[in-house]
Formats: sequence, C-alpha cells, structure tokens
Amino acid sequence: MDKVNLAEKFPSFTDHWCPRIVAELNGQHVKAVKFVGPFTWHLHEREDEMFLVFRGGFRMEFRNRVVTPREGEFIVVPRGVEHRPVAEQEVEVLLFEPAGTLSTGNVVEARTVEEPQRI
Amino acid sequence: MDKVNLAEKFPSFTDHWCPRIVAELNGQHVKAVKFVGPFTWHLHEREDEMFLVFRGGFRMEFRNRVVTPREGEFIVVPRGVEHRPVAEQEVEVLLFEPAGTLSTGNVVEARTVEEPQRI
Repeated sequence: MDKVNLAEKFPSFTDHWCPRIVAELNGQHVKAVKFVGPFTWHLHEREDEMFLVFRGGFRMEFRNRVVTPREGEFIVVPRGVEHRPVAEQEVEVLLFEPAGTLSTGNVVEARTVEEPQRI
Repeated sequence: MDKVNLAEKFPSFTDHWCPRIVAELNGQHVKAVKFVGPFTWHLHEREDEMFLVFRGGFRMEFRNRVVTPREGEFIVVPRGVEHRPVAEQEVEVLLFEPAGTLSTGNVVEARTVEEPQRI
C-alpha cells in the first residue's frame, strides 16, 4: 500500500515496447512502457486496453482512422480492434489491461513480452 | 475510440466526492473525482481501488498509517482494507475500480454515489 511515483518509475528503464508492471488490481495490470517508432499491427481477442500518456504523445493507428493522444489524454482500444501505436519521438505511457495481456496480441514476434518484469 | 482529455474533463464539474465515469474497460470503470476535506471511513469487500493523482495531493489514511500521494503518484487500496481519503486542498484524482464499486464501500450515507454519471 505504498504510493508509486511514475516520475521515478519511467527513468528506471530505457528500452522501448517492453512494458513493466507497476501495479496489479482486480485481475488487471498497470504497466509503464516507452514507445518510439512504429509498433506491430495486432489486436487482442479478449482484452480492452487503455493507453494514458504520461509524457509526450503518439499516434494510435486504426485501419480506418488515427487518434493522437498527448500528455494527460488517454484512449481505450476495445478488444478485437486492430491497432498500431506509432511514436515520432519517445513517449511514456501507462497501460491498463487484464493480467496476461500480450503486448503484441494475436501476433507473436521478437517484441512480444510474455512475462513482464515488475518494477 | 476517441481520445479523452483529462484536463478538459475535470473542469466540467465542481462538486466533491462525486465520481464521474470517463471510461469503461474489462468490467472496470475509470472515474474522475474531486476531493476536499475528510471522507468517510470505509472499505470495499470485493474491490481493489486505485487512486492516481492528476492535480494536487491528498492523504490516504489507514487505521495504522498514512500515505500522501501527489500529482503523478498513485496508490492501490486492496479490498478489505479500511481507508479514508482526506484532502487539505481540492485534489483531482483518477480512480480505477470494478464497475459498480460504491464510493463509500460498506457504508451507505449521504455521499454514497450509486449510479455515477458518465461525462
């Protein structure tokens, strides 16, 4: 029940597309992640996913539109919807999703994180 | 799948202790709430609750300790643990908790919100 300081968590890692678990509640994980560049097109069969921007901004691409959340903004990607995050510059994002959600969803590739680290 | 801007949501209401739903995912609600003063001692039998400070700071009192999250910090209160938020000055907080969570948990009183508004 200690507090978690996000401004301390984000500088504790430098790699991209590799979410860290910062909290767990009600079967959900809260993860800190840094993006840069384009990710992989994917979807999650059973999980809705929330992206809350802590610092910077990015582009969430869908097949038919684009949404551009910036600091203090969030977006919820419903299950089943193909998406691809793209960041021109490094962005710090807080994710909310069910425990066990794979970062690359239905696509397994080099950047898939199966067991996220806890920080 | 539009983005949600928290800096626009918070100014859209002025009352305290009355959470508004700003998103729903995986059976969880994301709520925006403003606190000022002391709340009611209570617990949630089945729900863990996350408090992420968007602006300001507050004191989360437990029966045997106190935690003081400020902007960019969060705390998770596990189910079954008695707690009481207290804010010396108005604070803006984002809540993450299962849909249906009562703001006052096991205590029903004047400030209990049964059906939060969506904004």
